[in-house]
Amino acid sequence: MSREKPPSVPYRAPRLPGADALRAQFDSILESGIWNRGPIVSRFEREFAARAGVGDAVLCSSATASLTLLLRADAPEGAIVMPALQFPPVFAALRDSGHEAIFADVDPRFWTARSPSLSRAVETAGVSMKFVSGFLGAPSFGETASCPGGEEWGREHAKPVWFDSCHAFGSSLDGRPSGSFGRAEVFSLTPSKLVIAGEGGVVTTDDQALAEELRALRDYGKRADGTFDPRGASARASEWTAGLALASLSLLGDEIDRRNRVIAVYREELAGTVGIEFQASDDRLMANGQECAIRVDAQACGTNRDRLRSALRAGGVESIPTYLKCLPERRAAFPVACALEAELLHLPLGIDVDERVAQRIARSIAEQVAGETPASPPS
Amino acid sequence: MSREKPPSVPYRAPRLPGADALRAQFDSILESGIWNRGPIVSRFEREFAARAGVGDAVLCSSATASLTLLLRADAPEGAIVMPALQFPPVFAALRDSGHEAIFADVDPRFWTARSPSLSRAVETAGVSMKFVSGFLGAPSFGETASCPGGEEWGREHAKPVWFDSCHAFGSSLDGRPSGSFGRAEVFSLTPSKLVIAGEGGVVTTDDQALAEELRALRDYGKRADGTFDPRGASARASEWTAGLALASLSLLGDEIDRRNRVIAVYREELAGTVGIEFQASDDRLMANGQECAIRVDAQACGTNRDRLRSALRAGGVESIPTYLKCLPERRAAFPVACALEAELLHLPLGIDVDERVAQRIARSIAEQVAGETPASPPS
Repeated sequence: MSREKPPSVPYRAPRLPGADALRAQFDSILESGIWNRGPIVSRFEREFAARAGVGDAVLCSSATASLTLLLRADAPEGAIVMPALQFPPVFAALRDSGHEAIFADVDPRFWTARSPSLSRAVETAGVSMKFVSGFLGAPSFGETASCPGGEEWGREHAKPVWFDSCHAFGSSLDGRPSGSFGRAEVFSLTPSKLVIAGEGGVVTTDDQALAEELRALRDYGKRADGTFDPRGASARASEWTAGLALASLSLLGDEIDRRNRVIAVYREELAGTVGIEFQASDDRLMANGQECAIRVDAQACGTNRDRLRSALRAGGVESIPTYLKCLPERRAAFPVACALEAELLHLPLGIDVDERVAQRIARSIAEQVAGETPASPPS
Repeated sequence: MSREKPPSVPYRAPRLPGADALRAQFDSILESGIWNRGPIVSRFEREFAARAGVGDAVLCSSATASLTLLLRADAPEGAIVMPALQFPPVFAALRDSGHEAIFADVDPRFWTARSPSLSRAVETAGVSMKFVSGFLGAPSFGETASCPGGEEWGREHAKPVWFDSCHAFGSSLDGRPSGSFGRAEVFSLTPSKLVIAGEGGVVTTDDQALAEELRALRDYGKRADGTFDPRGASARASEWTAGLALASLSLLGDEIDRRNRVIAVYREELAGTVGIEFQASDDRLMANGQECAIRVDAQACGTNRDRLRSALRAGGVESIPTYLKCLPERRAAFPVACALEAELLHLPLGIDVDERVAQRIARSIAEQVAGETPASPPS
């Protein structure tokens, strides 16, 4: 069996807290002897909520579990409007909370569903607005702190709005932090994110009653009277998970700065490259640098996403085709989501990627694209 | 607000690995820089499987998540026969895997459902055997390594059998360890158990294909071709969780010995106390000492479970009414499960309970029971 050589520039390499910072967290757990349902989970929840600019955060075992419990607790019966370009497990959360999906195609520049497309999606699905439960936005790729117009759409139609913001923690829009949009937002703590704990998920909300309900639901749905809410699940995270996340949270500012410096190089170097597009951004946005995806327009580039990826790989640089998928069954009705699924490439942003490395990668992309331009016909 | 004084003998206090043992685990994670989907999870799975005497173990985020995925992967469509006395979240796992329940009342001596009651339960439910998916046994309280006759019943009716063995890890029957019964067994790693990791669950099985399927399902149901199995969930546990569990696993033998010595004192001291009963045991059994529950017969004792509990509490001793519930809606049809729900009291087995403490507690129970005997009518 032949094995590929590991890349010299891996796509992902998280910023990990140092041994001393971790030991400080661990020592307090060793001292308390409490491994779950303890003070470190509460402390992490307070600090995470403060960073999100809301009153409450609820730590769970995963983002998908967080979303499932949130929708069980807060989403009225009915169909939930959501972008057609999604991380597929989101769909499992909808099903496990007993909801149908109404997909809205994404905006070709912002790569997420925006306000005008939401009402259109409901209309196309032939669903009466009274059977619509709400809108689950997804500020994907971290180039937005929210989904433009999402909250306004909710207000206009008197529907609740939530955000799957796994890509957005640390971003802000006009100074308003990710985590404070809609009724509630969901985050992930897996190592591909900026704040990490190995595994874990978080719900942020300003609704204290909702937060308390979620704390009960993650704990089997245990009620004070000894009975169990059937919507409950076993979805707690341990004191250790909370300690890891706290150590990581303190590194967030530095990591955002580093990623944004790297992304600035990618954007600058590839600004003039025909056929390579970046996610549209907003002047009011402070992005967290979670992802740096480029759209490879095969016709304009003379090469496609997958060939470009292979070429980079040959030079030791790992990039990945987007893991977001066009989820609807009738894919043809969602041309932008389908196109993006085939054309988006995530560039490396790991801890060992600095501005110099980013420049080298960007130039190699520009060369590939130029190099593959169809030759002029022989004269 | 007045607060109760903490008990001098808490009901639970886990045996925790020492700081050095934990540091050894943590150092290997710090060195690898891998926080999830890494080598420590695999190492824990190998060691746990070896202790269970099977080929495979699959680490998940919780026992309930483990059970949900197991039933999604392995249980044919239909109704699952299970004991009426249950930890209620088990029911959520059935629902989330799309199964109905057929409840069997439990045996008045062994406190779990045994072979003869299973077929009777199916008959009473009016369900044809061909719509029965299988049997989910529960060797509750750790006084059994399996459910007597459960596997035989499965063979007789050609139905798969699984065990919710959260109470049983480390027990064995005729040398056959808990974890090796039925198609698969499910365990928990919460601090109330003997092997702990803060949070977590494990499936043990000898079916390698099933184990691989569960590893894919806990990881969103990701398939090699980039698509997602809709039965998947986000139910991984981190490298840190695996490291904690490994450190705890090495203490299992000592902890089983300590608990069994304490339980022997409880049993011996209360052997002659009228109205106090212990779970029936089997000579072939090596129990793990997970729980020590007594059944308080109110009529014979002159006091009931809850009054006995309060009396112990007044003496600084914490005990808890059983957290297992008689789950069926038509409770009257399950008289034994209902009675046990009202009469079982779990005695303290925490790390600071030694034989001397157990003797004191047992004698205090005996006194309460004797002291509350209805006085003879005045002559």
